[in-house]
Amino acid sequence: MILGIDPGLANTGYAVLADSKSSETRFQLVECGMVEVGKGQGRLKDIYEGVNKIIEKYEIGEMAVESMFFAKNAKSALKVAEAIGVIKVCGLKKGIEVKEYTPLQVKLALVGYGRAEKSQVEEMVRQELGLVELIHPSHVADAVAVALTHGFTMKYE
Amino acid sequence: MILGIDPGLANTGYAVLADSKSSETRFQLVECGMVEVGKGQGRLKDIYEGVNKIIEKYEIGEMAVESMFFAKNAKSALKVAEAIGVIKVCGLKKGIEVKEYTPLQVKLALVGYGRAEKSQVEEMVRQELGLVELIHPSHVADAVAVALTHGFTMKYE
Repeated sequence: MILGIDPGLANTGYAVLADSKSSETRFQLVECGMVEVGKGQGRLKDIYEGVNKIIEKYEIGEMAVESMFFAKNAKSALKVAEAIGVIKVCGLKKGIEVKEYTPLQVKLALVGYGRAEKSQVEEMVRQELGLVELIHPSHVADAVAVALTHGFTMKYE
Repeated sequence: MILGIDPGLANTGYAVLADSKSSETRFQLVECGMVEVGKGQGRLKDIYEGVNKIIEKYEIGEMAVESMFFAKNAKSALKVAEAIGVIKVCGLKKGIEVKEYTPLQVKLALVGYGRAEKSQVEEMVRQELGLVELIHPSHVADAVAVALTHGFTMKYE
């Protein structure tokens, strides 16, 4: 199974994908949501515990993390990078390879167009997974998108 | 005991200080050195394991991490921030409070002068700990300095 993560300062989205049992889709959504975090330093610990819990619940074999946009605000970028370090180490300590994908790579993989709108990415995610509704909120949708990007990249590389 | 860490891309220095048993110094150096790291993604895992090992070896009650200089190279700054996240979570998951100190705070605490030279900081570290020689390499010296900064800050706050 693939674990996709969209790291954020306060909001870290996650998504677990498995190979699809249906002939109409390539992957199926197993679970997605937000890692619950508190404030201040507790945040890193909450991310650590939340991501570990998901890795242990499912047989996560691969992880994909959305890497950062470049960062008007350097200070908050550094804080998000701390969270990314914590997320990566959750996988690495279990021997899981962790790949990073830029927002550009996600758009290219899902829509085939690097300037695609967020709404186009979300619509492709919906179609690919055979879902009735778009995924909300956007941190969760982004986590699903990066997991799918990884899945496509691995399948067709 | 206080664990001080100077995080780096490839070189993470650490230092463990205890209250001094001598009347001539306030703290004594218990152990210091570099956390051994490999290359690439393994680096974060190595830092995680190395810092955990030190925390478990000693009864670490407090951690102090030197925070980053602002960063001509944004990309390497983000990589160091990932390492800082990993270092912090090693402490936080054990319930250890982790404080960050800027290079300026270290200079002010040890030399009393924010524009102090590196060599002045190193000399103050040597004197404070009653050492014969200066500590080398500089990542280790910086780790000792941030641990001392934390010690002084806690003792005289």
